Amino acid sequence: KMKVTILGAGAMGSALTIPLSDNGHTVNLWGTEYDAGILRVIRKRDAHPRIGVKIPDRVHFFDADQLRPALNGSDIVVIAVSSNAVRAITRRIAPYLKRNIILMIVSKGLEECSQGIIILTDVIRNELIKNLKDEITIVAVGGPSIASELAKKLPTAAVYASTELEAAKISRDTFVTPYYRIKISSDVIGLELSAALKNVYAIAIGWCDGLAKELGEKTLDNVKALLFTQALREMALIVKIMGGNVETVYDLAGVGDFEVTSMSKERRNRTFGELLGCGLSPERALSELEKTGRGVVEGYLTCDKAYKLAKELENRGEINLSEQLPLLKEMYLVLFNSKRVKDAISDFLRKI
Amino acid sequence: KMKVTILGAGAMGSALTIPLSDNGHTVNLWGTEYDAGILRVIRKRDAHPRIGVKIPDRVHFFDADQLRPALNGSDIVVIAVSSNAVRAITRRIAPYLKRNIILMIVSKGLEECSQGIIILTDVIRNELIKNLKDEITIVAVGGPSIASELAKKLPTAAVYASTELEAAKISRDTFVTPYYRIKISSDVIGLELSAALKNVYAIAIGWCDGLAKELGEKTLDNVKALLFTQALREMALIVKIMGGNVETVYDLAGVGDFEVTSMSKERRNRTFGELLGCGLSPERALSELEKTGRGVVEGYLTCDKAYKLAKELENRGEINLSEQLPLLKEMYLVLFNSKRVKDAISDFLRKI
Repeated sequence: KMKVTILGAGAMGSALTIPLSDNGHTVNLWGTEYDAGILRVIRKRDAHPRIGVKIPDRVHFFDADQLRPALNGSDIVVIAVSSNAVRAITRRIAPYLKRNIILMIVSKGLEECSQGIIILTDVIRNELIKNLKDEITIVAVGGPSIASELAKKLPTAAVYASTELEAAKISRDTFVTPYYRIKISSDVIGLELSAALKNVYAIAIGWCDGLAKELGEKTLDNVKALLFTQALREMALIVKIMGGNVETVYDLAGVGDFEVTSMSKERRNRTFGELLGCGLSPERALSELEKTGRGVVEGYLTCDKAYKLAKELENRGEINLSEQLPLLKEMYLVLFNSKRVKDAISDFLRKI
Repeated sequence: KMKVTILGAGAMGSALTIPLSDNGHTVNLWGTEYDAGILRVIRKRDAHPRIGVKIPDRVHFFDADQLRPALNGSDIVVIAVSSNAVRAITRRIAPYLKRNIILMIVSKGLEECSQGIIILTDVIRNELIKNLKDEITIVAVGGPSIASELAKKLPTAAVYASTELEAAKISRDTFVTPYYRIKISSDVIGLELSAALKNVYAIAIGWCDGLAKELGEKTLDNVKALLFTQALREMALIVKIMGGNVETVYDLAGVGDFEVTSMSKERRNRTFGELLGCGLSPERALSELEKTGRGVVEGYLTCDKAYKLAKELENRGEINLSEQLPLLKEMYLVLFNSKRVKDAISDFLRKI
């Protein structure tokens, strides 16, 4: 049996305690400063407010100031904080990590640093203590996994990717249950980029439902399918140029995760897009979402970085942004340049 | 300007008169015996009952017994009857066709004949008069196109595929408008197989919503995304073995059309699947759908043929059906062997 520490008591971090407990592992769940309210609830063994189920009795809880004891003796550490906190949390845990542990990451996003735009596994690697860099293996988690469904033990499939397949296998064997199915992959780049970009493109899928309302139409399903297909094409292009496998984009971690993110009615990125399609400005849409208390719109934060990445690729002569990533371009203009969704879709259609 | 005859006054055949009229072509719309009621309505210039809009004034209508005058002098003939009527209609029109015309097909399905399971473009070719076989070019139409949205001039994208790219280009130039965007392709096999199979797999996507209700869950979105991804993987495998391009499956005619067919709320195949997921037998589900008067469930008819095709491929040693097409196998068992959706999904999950 393994000892596993999960960092972040939000929806996905907490959901993962369920298959781990079913498999008889020792599980530590550490909450960030922002998770204090959640910890208070789940310590009483009440249902977790984000996933609606009780956390198993055998899980040990740790507060934000108990990071060191939370990590003590763990074989696997899972980073499940929001994407913009990944660098900070890695920096905090780096001194306590032993060699030969596995570091898993379920957060999804891109980060801007002096090297340009990088994926989160690279953020983590950069922050590890020098002599541990080659001793700690990183496993990235992707696939269509709504945390609350996993927590209810409804069937869920994930992909665990690592450049060291053996570590992906150990992780899989630790987490897999009859309801939580896990495939392994060596394509970390493809998985991480798909996972980050799907949040961005899900916003455009939301546009269609908002614009339909705005136009008084029941649906704009033909446009939605067109944008869905285009999004996949653009993700595949970016993944390919960045050295990942196009196959990853067309498998669970790509099209599967994109499908659930962009079609499932209550996902934040999609809902944000829908509000934009109704004619709200990004600022208005974000403040509307804030009122419902549904946390960060990851795709909004990532769109800016994805566009910068595309610009980098264009500057290196690898792509023509307007020609090959026209949807990303229109998304950027809508999110950061006051363009209206209606005009963005019209301009995009002309490229078909 | 061209003279175009559309055979079949159902939703898609009628919708195509709109871009053609906007482009100033001469358009003949011929109705089958089953379209008599529709023709009566649209002759009065009332809204078409299936697509909700008026057919343009310049369109000429022809009844079932006026096939010959309807075809007279046409440069392009579009077959838009239901898929199981394609062979019969081709046999009826064959004597009246001139050389050098373009025959377009928007119907989607597979057919069983002495050669085994074949795509509809091959059905058509088999029925053409011998000395015309090489003189008439066939163009297959695919992509995510809900007819009523196209008819309302809401943005729609399609793919026109032909082994003779020049014919696909002529067709595109005839139909393209600012709201009806058309890509061309030479992969007829990939397009036809994707278009037929997407109807089958859309039924499995519907399962998830039905089963969620049955289980008292809000959603089974993780499973749905898993089945969506698996369906694409299975389509890609079949297309590849049959000599088409996998890229077609991951473009508009594949993933795009599959997305709209399986996600759009009122599509018949998806709704049929939802009823099965709720626990209804296929017979019960079909009779429920009949009550709402929403026509044929193409995916039901095609599933049997797709399974036979898969069996042919297995007999030739090209695949292992249970291992490589597990979702198609489970679908077949549910539709034709009384297996319950719940059990089918459980058994499928074990293969992941």
